[in-house]
Amino acid sequence: MAFTLTLLGVGSALPANNRNPSAQFLQTGNTGILIDCGEGTQMQLRKCRIGFQKIHHIFISHLHGDHYLGLMGLLWSMNLLGRKIALNLYGPKALEKIIALQLTSSSSRLDFELRFKALDHGAPEVLFENKKLTLSSFPLKHKIPCSGLLVKEKQGPLRLIPAKLIKYDVPTYLRNGLKEGRDFIDPESGARIKNSIFTLPPSPVVSYAYCSDTAFSETLPDFIRNVTVLYHEATFLEEDAVRAKRTKHSTAAQAATIAKLSNAGQLILGHYSNRYDSLLTFLIEAEAVFHNTILGEEAHSYPVRIPGK
Amino acid sequence: MAFTLTLLGVGSALPANNRNPSAQFLQTGNTGILIDCGEGTQMQLRKCRIGFQKIHHIFISHLHGDHYLGLMGLLWSMNLLGRKIALNLYGPKALEKIIALQLTSSSSRLDFELRFKALDHGAPEVLFENKKLTLSSFPLKHKIPCSGLLVKEKQGPLRLIPAKLIKYDVPTYLRNGLKEGRDFIDPESGARIKNSIFTLPPSPVVSYAYCSDTAFSETLPDFIRNVTVLYHEATFLEEDAVRAKRTKHSTAAQAATIAKLSNAGQLILGHYSNRYDSLLTFLIEAEAVFHNTILGEEAHSYPVRIPGK
Repeated sequence: MAFTLTLLGVGSALPANNRNPSAQFLQTGNTGILIDCGEGTQMQLRKCRIGFQKIHHIFISHLHGDHYLGLMGLLWSMNLLGRKIALNLYGPKALEKIIALQLTSSSSRLDFELRFKALDHGAPEVLFENKKLTLSSFPLKHKIPCSGLLVKEKQGPLRLIPAKLIKYDVPTYLRNGLKEGRDFIDPESGARIKNSIFTLPPSPVVSYAYCSDTAFSETLPDFIRNVTVLYHEATFLEEDAVRAKRTKHSTAAQAATIAKLSNAGQLILGHYSNRYDSLLTFLIEAEAVFHNTILGEEAHSYPVRIPGK
Repeated sequence: MAFTLTLLGVGSALPANNRNPSAQFLQTGNTGILIDCGEGTQMQLRKCRIGFQKIHHIFISHLHGDHYLGLMGLLWSMNLLGRKIALNLYGPKALEKIIALQLTSSSSRLDFELRFKALDHGAPEVLFENKKLTLSSFPLKHKIPCSGLLVKEKQGPLRLIPAKLIKYDVPTYLRNGLKEGRDFIDPESGARIKNSIFTLPPSPVVSYAYCSDTAFSETLPDFIRNVTVLYHEATFLEEDAVRAKRTKHSTAAQAATIAKLSNAGQLILGHYSNRYDSLLTFLIEAEAVFHNTILGEEAHSYPVRIPGK
């Protein structure tokens, strides 16, 4: 399947140049995932016409304010709007306490189930999986514990070739077996015909990785190898590479290097520092390293799909 | 002196119709006061070109999210921007814990002094005073403990009448005495001349009261008698009066009744529920009770001054 990514905030810590703090929404089939939730995320969701109840999972990468301060307001709004379905929340351990304290302090409670899972910021970990998807986290390299998110479609079954099913008169009840890789044994003659006659390999899987905030990290590509689309923070330009190192952020060229080393299909940049008004140089510096780069823009949606499909 | 009020958010709990949650900025001479700080306040301050460092006091009326969720982001931004001067913060007791937990959880600290004072929601109380101003809180009637804010200019000295000073040849060193109400005793003749010959009453004092959120409260006018400008929440229209009562909010007509009973100079409405798109009926319903009413609008500034001055 194809995912759709909508960027809600591509700014960094200070509000400026009309850029909002980090937040994005990934639609994967019927499942909606909110990735980080900076201040103002609920207003941005409204602007992008994304219903709050379409969010099934929320991932908070770390506890710097520009990545989570919109969460409490969103939870309260979901509640006011009558949400009943459970919400899966993944974030640093202290987030659960922060939410609980604010609920208690306002004598309020949520009328829906909040399934909280604390992130292990030290190692990759599966957060959730169902038949179609796996959500997993992996360590980033920031000033405080911080994780990235990898959303990966699960490999589907082998694809049947209709013409061959007809030619060999394969009964319907045996077709699922073919999809699972079994050979065809003709019920009349008993002849075994190899599976590969009837099938094509499964559709290539789509995946999306979110890396914000992080210093350049040589171990990072191992966690996101061959990812379809990579969103990687690009807080600074090369002229501010020293500052990037000191603040444990990345430059646009470093983001592109990660995309290259990971063999990513496409790179989307974001988390631009408020010191830059124009973003064109980000694109120029990244494209010099990794060609298929785009500048992430707020309130824009991007397909996450295998190139050429 | 005249105050200037800038409304930053006039919406209520749910973001809608492009209205932001509660926040406003009151400029009183050199002193800036931020009153409530809903999510997105720092973006609204930027939009209205109000520098974060111009804020000397922050008042948080209560701990419903739409009145305080922008605070943590604003504090962090002030810090990032290098604030060194102290900030006075008044709010419900638990607010101090909420801030402390979020600072600890992100291994961060503020490099400026945060002087926190917990509100007594049960009785009126002076929060701060200097030579020119008094800030005090008073109880409102809401679902959780909630306070209003009264900002009052202090009465200045008697005003001298220049023509009389010349006529009676009053030496400069005796003029302050006249301002303080003393009679003039002629240094040459020893004659006593009554103070009232030389002076006019002090300039009338300007005051501003903020009441949000509250049910209609008959005791409220006692706390804000003769206020120059009253901002009073008007969450609902008369057709939703039952809902107003149940949720402990006010209708536009109730806000106007409070303005009338308080003998306020002017009423500004705000905190409109997201269920109303057009606001004209708010004005019609309030004006029927209290003529000098205006609809509060975001990113608009209003002078707080004695009518006709």
